[in-house]
Amino acid sequence: MSDAPVIALTTGEPAGIGPELAVMLATDGATGTTPGHRRVAVGDAGLLAERAEALGRALEIVELAPGEPVPETRPGRLPVWPVALAAPSRPGVLDIRNGDYVLETLDRAVAGCRAGEAAGIVTAPLHKAVIREAGHADFTGHTEYLRDACGVDEVVMMLATDRALHATGPDWQGPRSLRVALATTHLPLREVSDAVTPERLTRILRILDADLRRWFGLAAPRIAVCGLNPHAGEGGHLGREELEVIVPTLAALRREGLTLDGPLPADTLFTPRHLAEADAVLAMYHDQGLPVLKYAGFGRAANITLGLPLVRTSVDHGTALDLAGSGRADPGSLAVAEALAADMARRAARD
Amino acid sequence: MSDAPVIALTTGEPAGIGPELAVMLATDGATGTTPGHRRVAVGDAGLLAERAEALGRALEIVELAPGEPVPETRPGRLPVWPVALAAPSRPGVLDIRNGDYVLETLDRAVAGCRAGEAAGIVTAPLHKAVIREAGHADFTGHTEYLRDACGVDEVVMMLATDRALHATGPDWQGPRSLRVALATTHLPLREVSDAVTPERLTRILRILDADLRRWFGLAAPRIAVCGLNPHAGEGGHLGREELEVIVPTLAALRREGLTLDGPLPADTLFTPRHLAEADAVLAMYHDQGLPVLKYAGFGRAANITLGLPLVRTSVDHGTALDLAGSGRADPGSLAVAEALAADMARRAARD
Repeated sequence: MSDAPVIALTTGEPAGIGPELAVMLATDGATGTTPGHRRVAVGDAGLLAERAEALGRALEIVELAPGEPVPETRPGRLPVWPVALAAPSRPGVLDIRNGDYVLETLDRAVAGCRAGEAAGIVTAPLHKAVIREAGHADFTGHTEYLRDACGVDEVVMMLATDRALHATGPDWQGPRSLRVALATTHLPLREVSDAVTPERLTRILRILDADLRRWFGLAAPRIAVCGLNPHAGEGGHLGREELEVIVPTLAALRREGLTLDGPLPADTLFTPRHLAEADAVLAMYHDQGLPVLKYAGFGRAANITLGLPLVRTSVDHGTALDLAGSGRADPGSLAVAEALAADMARRAARD
Repeated sequence: MSDAPVIALTTGEPAGIGPELAVMLATDGATGTTPGHRRVAVGDAGLLAERAEALGRALEIVELAPGEPVPETRPGRLPVWPVALAAPSRPGVLDIRNGDYVLETLDRAVAGCRAGEAAGIVTAPLHKAVIREAGHADFTGHTEYLRDACGVDEVVMMLATDRALHATGPDWQGPRSLRVALATTHLPLREVSDAVTPERLTRILRILDADLRRWFGLAAPRIAVCGLNPHAGEGGHLGREELEVIVPTLAALRREGLTLDGPLPADTLFTPRHLAEADAVLAMYHDQGLPVLKYAGFGRAANITLGLPLVRTSVDHGTALDLAGSGRADPGSLAVAEALAADMARRAARD
């Protein structure tokens, strides 16, 4: 049996494009074989079979019992950790009866990682509203759910492009893969300034530094940090958070051994000279960092959750209900997310 | 005498890279000839001669009297509207005695446009602090100075990349040249949300629409508008400014005949599918729009001031005092700014 790490692929909202993206990966020549890792889908086996048939793709689905070894990945075969739908699912049609189903796929994947059956999780998109309506009113997303399931206090959202978009070297993890982590994530803009505290920055940067070492094989990660205000505050003329919060926090973290550049104006930092010298960028908020990342990498970028005891990556897009069932969805981001999870798991396994 | 429009190139802070960039343009094979427009530099003729000599470039400087026709541009010759330095200038060494000099070059260029001697202005970078210290304590930059000199109330800052970076078509002005205008510019982040008012958005979008028609030859400009909050507020979950301010303002402007898409999440808007359908993007604030623009176009992007009665473009970089005199400064942005100003002037002249 192969010792290549197992990556659990949760297939997400059943009415969205997740199930068919999994089918596409499993039946494609390029992604159907994964010599570096073994893929196991998590979801309803019948649903996956239906989607494969609708796409006209020949797919052998192999349901695995708990503890049963995951076979090597080969085109046209998809091992599955089965989780049963509560109700039949049609593409594009949300059904709150299946809200719990999506969470159960996550629970199965986490349990698999805990039991040593898998090294990491790749998540296809879910639909927040249907899960909330299904009785989980406080559900805010994959990231927070996995944070709580793993019992950690804080996680860091980082997006990364595929190397091909931002690279000259052969290594996915090389400094030319654009990686952008966020100090704050889903906050109204007017709440951002107050949320950028020394405590938060310290926690986020420690996690980012530690996980760039752990999962990305970087012995001394170089992190470029954006200012909060335009021109990084321009010496206090355009805001004082740099002088009062960011500069002293970075100074303290440098004394702990972190290699930090900044705070730099965001529109200076995201240029080739500065990016070439950074292993990752920390943006202060969502729309300071992600537009560049999506521009650079749309369709070939993945979301990574740092700070968990397991590898977790995800697509950078939503459920695309309007595309579900059409066969026109692009599996590019899911392929990148899976390859990245496998790289991270292999690297950690070597340490 | 050619009827190609005249573009006045103000050479900016004398200790910065502006003068040598002008020399580079005038002596370069590619930019030394400009069949579509005529270049006239504005600055100290002796300074330009010194910089040319220091770079080892043969340059004939032709001082023009007020009203004297600007000759056609040819490599190795630079017509100049002379403005005398107050004190000799050494590369990299600021001198407050020359603070007024920079403003006088702007005044000369504006006077030239008013008199019909020139159709537009391209500005090399100035140094704000030295102008403030020279007795203009409230000086905030080129844009505001030109706004006041032209007697208008509001201008719009827009950046554009060279077509080559974001284009498949042959036309600089085509929809594939990335153009990003800003609803707010140099404000601390915590002041942005309150500054995005219906009144401001209305003024900014009217100017943007009118000037895309006037200078860019677009009969019905399509403007994609970012939300203020992440995910454009996600239906109110992440901020209510979209629902309360942006959506109703865009609706009112659509009734005036503007073609507006949005508000859209910034990290969705800056992807190929949406950009392909937009002639310009309106970002709500500096670091929402400019990092992408600079990433896409660094070194080949220019800043455009809309809302003026004349064409005005500028470089997207600063004085680079550390590079001044070295000959290593890159004239790419200045060349783009000049070509763009010439295109804008020609297009307006045809109307």
